[in-house]
Amino acid sequence: MTTVKDSVHDHIEVEGVAAALMDTAPVQRLRRVSQLGTVSLVYPSANHTRFEHSLGVYHLASRALDHLDIHGRRAETVRAAAILHDIGHGPFSHNVEDLIHRRIGRYHHDVDDLVTTGDVARALDAHEIDPDRVVELIDGEGLLGQLVAGELDVDRMDYLVRDAHHTGVPYGTIDHQRLVRALRFVDGRLVLDEGNVQTAESLLVARALMNPTVYNHHVARISKAMLRRATDSLIDETDVTAAEVRRMDDPELQVALRTHDVSAHLGERLADRRLYKRAVWAEMGDVSASFDDRFEADADRIADYEQTIADRAGVKPEHVVVDVQGEPSMQESTSRVLVNGDVRRLDEQSTLVRAIQVTQREQWRLGVYAPERETSRVGRAAEQVLGLETDGALIAENDSPGRYATLEDFGGD
Amino acid sequence: MTTVKDSVHDHIEVEGVAAALMDTAPVQRLRRVSQLGTVSLVYPSANHTRFEHSLGVYHLASRALDHLDIHGRRAETVRAAAILHDIGHGPFSHNVEDLIHRRIGRYHHDVDDLVTTGDVARALDAHEIDPDRVVELIDGEGLLGQLVAGELDVDRMDYLVRDAHHTGVPYGTIDHQRLVRALRFVDGRLVLDEGNVQTAESLLVARALMNPTVYNHHVARISKAMLRRATDSLIDETDVTAAEVRRMDDPELQVALRTHDVSAHLGERLADRRLYKRAVWAEMGDVSASFDDRFEADADRIADYEQTIADRAGVKPEHVVVDVQGEPSMQESTSRVLVNGDVRRLDEQSTLVRAIQVTQREQWRLGVYAPERETSRVGRAAEQVLGLETDGALIAENDSPGRYATLEDFGGD
Amino acid sequence: MTTVKDSVHDHIEVEGVAAALMDTAPVQRLRRVSQLGTVSLVYPSANHTRFEHSLGVYHLASRALDHLDIHGRRAETVRAAAILHDIGHGPFSHNVEDLIHRRIGRYHHDVDDLVTTGDVARALDAHEIDPDRVVELIDGEGLLGQLVAGELDVDRMDYLVRDAHHTGVPYGTIDHQRLVRALRFVDGRLVLDEGNVQTAESLLVARALMNPTVYNHHVARISKAMLRRATDSLIDETDVTAAEVRRMDDPELQVALRTHDVSAHLGERLADRRLYKRAVWAEMGDVSASFDDRFEADADRIADYEQTIADRAGVKPEHVVVDVQGEPSMQESTSRVLVNGDVRRLDEQSTLVRAIQVTQREQWRLGVYAPERETSRVGRAAEQVLGLETDGALIAENDSPGRYATLEDFGGD
Amino acid sequence: MTTVKDSVHDHIEVEGVAAALMDTAPVQRLRRVSQLGTVSLVYPSANHTRFEHSLGVYHLASRALDHLDIHGRRAETVRAAAILHDIGHGPFSHNVEDLIHRRIGRYHHDVDDLVTTGDVARALDAHEIDPDRVVELIDGEGLLGQLVAGELDVDRMDYLVRDAHHTGVPYGTIDHQRLVRALRFVDGRLVLDEGNVQTAESLLVARALMNPTVYNHHVARISKAMLRRATDSLIDETDVTAAEVRRMDDPELQVALRTHDVSAHLGERLADRRLYKRAVWAEMGDVSASFDDRFEADADRIADYEQTIADRAGVKPEHVVVDVQGEPSMQESTSRVLVNGDVRRLDEQSTLVRAIQVTQREQWRLGVYAPERETSRVGRAAEQVLGLETDGALIAENDSPGRYATLEDFGGD
Repeated sequence: MTTVKDSVHDHIEVEGVAAALMDTAPVQRLRRVSQLGTVSLVYPSANHTRFEHSLGVYHLASRALDHLDIHGRRAETVRAAAILHDIGHGPFSHNVEDLIHRRIGRYHHDVDDLVTTGDVARALDAHEIDPDRVVELIDGEGLLGQLVAGELDVDRMDYLVRDAHHTGVPYGTIDHQRLVRALRFVDGRLVLDEGNVQTAESLLVARALMNPTVYNHHVARISKAMLRRATDSLIDETDVTAAEVRRMDDPELQVALRTHDVSAHLGERLADRRLYKRAVWAEMGDVSASFDDRFEADADRIADYEQTIADRAGVKPEHVVVDVQGEPSMQESTSRVLVNGDVRRLDEQSTLVRAIQVTQREQWRLGVYAPERETSRVGRAAEQVLGLETDGALIAENDSPGRYATLEDFGGD
Repeated sequence: MTTVKDSVHDHIEVEGVAAALMDTAPVQRLRRVSQLGTVSLVYPSANHTRFEHSLGVYHLASRALDHLDIHGRRAETVRAAAILHDIGHGPFSHNVEDLIHRRIGRYHHDVDDLVTTGDVARALDAHEIDPDRVVELIDGEGLLGQLVAGELDVDRMDYLVRDAHHTGVPYGTIDHQRLVRALRFVDGRLVLDEGNVQTAESLLVARALMNPTVYNHHVARISKAMLRRATDSLIDETDVTAAEVRRMDDPELQVALRTHDVSAHLGERLADRRLYKRAVWAEMGDVSASFDDRFEADADRIADYEQTIADRAGVKPEHVVVDVQGEPSMQESTSRVLVNGDVRRLDEQSTLVRAIQVTQREQWRLGVYAPERETSRVGRAAEQVLGLETDGALIAENDSPGRYATLEDFGGD
Repeated sequence: MTTVKDSVHDHIEVEGVAAALMDTAPVQRLRRVSQLGTVSLVYPSANHTRFEHSLGVYHLASRALDHLDIHGRRAETVRAAAILHDIGHGPFSHNVEDLIHRRIGRYHHDVDDLVTTGDVARALDAHEIDPDRVVELIDGEGLLGQLVAGELDVDRMDYLVRDAHHTGVPYGTIDHQRLVRALRFVDGRLVLDEGNVQTAESLLVARALMNPTVYNHHVARISKAMLRRATDSLIDETDVTAAEVRRMDDPELQVALRTHDVSAHLGERLADRRLYKRAVWAEMGDVSASFDDRFEADADRIADYEQTIADRAGVKPEHVVVDVQGEPSMQESTSRVLVNGDVRRLDEQSTLVRAIQVTQREQWRLGVYAPERETSRVGRAAEQVLGLETDGALIAENDSPGRYATLEDFGGD
Repeated sequence: MTTVKDSVHDHIEVEGVAAALMDTAPVQRLRRVSQLGTVSLVYPSANHTRFEHSLGVYHLASRALDHLDIHGRRAETVRAAAILHDIGHGPFSHNVEDLIHRRIGRYHHDVDDLVTTGDVARALDAHEIDPDRVVELIDGEGLLGQLVAGELDVDRMDYLVRDAHHTGVPYGTIDHQRLVRALRFVDGRLVLDEGNVQTAESLLVARALMNPTVYNHHVARISKAMLRRATDSLIDETDVTAAEVRRMDDPELQVALRTHDVSAHLGERLADRRLYKRAVWAEMGDVSASFDDRFEADADRIADYEQTIADRAGVKPEHVVVDVQGEPSMQESTSRVLVNGDVRRLDEQSTLVRAIQVTQREQWRLGVYAPERETSRVGRAAEQVLGLETDGALIAENDSPGRYATLEDFGGD
């Protein structure tokens, strides 16, 4: 058994297959993949990694399994899945996930190729754990998959608390020890026990407050979009492949972007934090319905728009970055709670959760970013190209109904 | 200047009139008045006092005044009001406030008699601070009164963080440093600056989560109702007056309750934590509208009900405690935020805040409490006497729509 | 099983005999006995109680027993002892312990009368736990007694962390999770496992820094001495007995002191924090060796000195309080650590620990206290009566060699 | 003014020249230089950077200047020095500092070339701050230089607290707010005010406990030595220069090591955490005096030893890493405190501090590291080559007198 000191959970005892997996290269690589990608450009202390997060998820999974009275091979397989659940992440975690998926069809939870080969496969085999079962669990399949990747999984319990600890933003401070104790299986579903509607709500509230403050802070979005743009160029215009990028760590991608001509402009800007500014920041209502649909699953069109806007504005192509947020999702709102013996969906049970669902849509924004001197030119061009109904207001108000603060003042922006 | 070490704000520098006021008997008395009254029977660590809270409010008021660039006599008067704002509290803070008010017409913020006499008056005089102005500020009057007792006052900023620290419940952890920095005066109103809708929401959310978990936890309500009942007896049936109770500290009231025959039964039960249980726990919808109205401002009627229910159930009068929660209020939801230069009311601006308003009503409960062995008898009698439409369900479900968890498991109850 | 939320250890699961014991009157009484007595007059947030500390000790004992692989009846008996270990404390914990012991021969750990009768005895009996064994464990006897009351007991692990949390003084922040994991039994002795010399040292260092800053802060000592003096008068000059005082809680003693004429002067001063000041504050070297010896085990002589000094100074007897600190002890310095397979005493192993032993003696002080206006008169009289070799310096320097800061500035003193 | 949210100091307000400097490339580069280098291989959460530390030092410097009542140009210059004080660090902070110094004669505080050119010079010039004065302050010269780089500088106040926060090891938790408040200038020296001997001691104690647990943990030392060895090869055997390495960030050096053949073996091992193990771990007493002297200022000789040991053991040259710790220094022990009006040196005043000085020497170790399978062969060879008097014990006991625990169990090693 190995004991690891963690800044969030204090001592984490790692044993069995998890101890073996911890020492494999794919897991050690997570030490060099930041948990929050470009968020550290907003919150300078947010330099925590997928490695410590994976240990935290393993720890909470172990606690949950104890409370659920699940032991033996089944439990060991869940613990393996917990510590491995993020090995599929590319550099900067979610920041380049979409572009990798577009090219090679893998999201970060598609890890069959990583789990069934090399070090990891050997470690699983030595402990007689079925790698296919691990892959399924990481994909959220089956009864126990809900614990690893579901509405009430230990993944989000760890990241909310950890991200709060490292950013200094208190909103993610949930009562994770209570959550882990309240998990139950009822009719094949993972639910929270009686008396925990509020515990469940607090999980949603924490996300609802962390989203605009941290995860979707506009400076984090701008830099993420710049990173995505630079990485697209790297893959499209050099011999670096998407598959290679997927297995890079943060240092490797950073260096690659800065050393290749096609991405150096954006790579250096990111390094020095000379970020683009918002030329357009439009609410969902400003964007025509048809436009919204066209975007779906069509990332190439974004590239076309960037090119067209740049042409019309008369600026270099790499000076225009279009950033379309996905449809707001709130997986946790379908989590189940036990109420007087009945299993109920949280969003049916809770007025607060339904309000959060509305709020999420109100917070949606479409952004177009450009170097500071070119924002007005690019903004006007983008308005025309994208057919925005902004009545001249290229940048949506800071706080239209239901919108969260944008913390303009943090991080020098 | 004196520096005080505080477990929440670390070092607090107390100077000027506040340093003089801190050493007066009415402020020192707050060391013996618990901040949360009977909540410590649910959360054993919640033993913090009105004294440390008052220092915290003074500290945040000082920071806010600095940020608002208010100095000199005006600022000194606000600081005096901040450190004095709670000296009108009776023992156990809010727990016996209503019964004192019913008898002598003073709430805890009616402090003119305490501020204009004795030590406190002398300290104010020595620093040339107008005591009447201090009384007004504590009552929330005027521009600066909003800082001491308004929707965005520093009082609630301190207590949310402090109560979270001492109970261990994380939900009160707001970003008070950001709130204090974001305060502005616009057209004579205290508002939060641009980009702080979410900061304001987080204040409401914190209260919405702390209310059912901490402040209105059913065990805290039961013991508070027992304390109120015992104190009523003490005043009605001995020569102890309401005015005397108002100026007691927690130890004095505790000892008085246990040493007088009329209150000893409940006093000892509270001391040993042998608490009554819920005989009725009804939602607002279970209570007929007319009933609800009749209760308004008529505390004597509650005493009648208690007597009638006891008679009908055939139990001793002191074995029935009727506990009617006041109409839910959410003062903070009318706080103002700056949005694109306009001052807007938070509840008009925020979907989330409107949901919290609904949720608050859903959480309202009427309780009737009795010794464990008599709950069913008392429950049936209460149903008839109070005309409850409960269809046989004397105790409302633990988690009907929108209700927060009741943490049945905490504190041994 | 009951789960209690604690501000230090988060969720504490109480089960078995401990759950039954928690609900007895002698344990519930600890809710009204402050952990640090008069220290809250220095650190206003230090209002935590023996009740929450007892839960904490129970929690750490449970964790230690798990790590030591001790289960069943033996473990259950230790858990009972852990939650009961402080029920023998009088009001204000250690503050009046000596005077009770002098009169009825019981220290706080002499609990045979409390454990073998009433509620507690019934709860133990119902769980088939031998009360005599519990008494022995609380007295530190036997193998497992070391865990409850020994050099490496869980008692001090809890109080150091808890006192740091509530005072805000960081020095007590030890790595208690590591300590609990490192405990081993070797040849019938409780020791720390290999690689933990430093962990052991940190425990000593924490105490060495907390002692002068918190536990023996001169303001805490002054108010403790005043409390002791007032309580002595109460017992000597009224019909209140020492046995009764022993079973009072803090509120009862506070009220008793303020309502009896003989103790009201000091009782009111303590309530309003109008504390005596130092008339003499002498180092060990200033006090003649013979004097030191005479004090040993002779508390009556202190009363004589107080009377004689008051006579000579021409002040009222209750205006002179003589405060003689006991011989510095450092029980933890004899704790054992495993080093390369050998069990070694920490003070033989560690240069740092030996230095702390020296430092403790350097910090020893004899104090004589009086109302502020009479300190110089009382000081001169005390110098003569006590035969101090102070060369005219009645108050020792603030920081003679090795002395810790006295934080004169905290708490308004 | 910009407000930055920090996980340690909460909100940091950056203004004036510091706000301008924060946005320069040399300061932004610190985002990519880890504060503790290879320590994150022991404590996985320790991923904080020199950037957040620099903001913290700026923050504490500002607070100290306020308390010292220093304003205007002088204060602004100190604030500039505070935020710039670490821009001279190479990648992985102290880990490769010595090898850079050996080749180009610059330590991390030799920053004249960085301060007087480019972005930084322009920002200073725009705010009329003399760059030469900034260079001097960073070098610790003059009255105010003591605040930036002296025995009582704000640098160590920040890093102790920050390193504790991010490693999870509690020992660094000092009372920095008290320290900053206690600073005074007396006769041109920065000292701590009366009543702060203990505050000063706690600073030393914190370092004494953090040193073996964190900074010199053997796993951190092994990986640091491997990194140094790999970087030496990179510079000696490729066209990468020491000057270039000095200005790399962590990602650049990591990638460079892994992509050049001469360093790839060690670079990959570091990446996968396949670390060498201790072949020799000798105390100062085991090393002959002459040997110790020879090492002084002669790093080439270490390379010779590595080669000779490898030859004798018959292993590849890069499989032997010799790691000689510098002479223990304890700069803080010469810090000054005010005691009864006299300025005294802390080590003359404090028994505890003198003990810490002894302890530091007891903790000194010479290490020789090799791949796990070759440790015994390499150990025997090293014993002969280095003339160790180990009586066959190649690895010193884990806890010889005064040594701190080595936390063998953390981090999987």
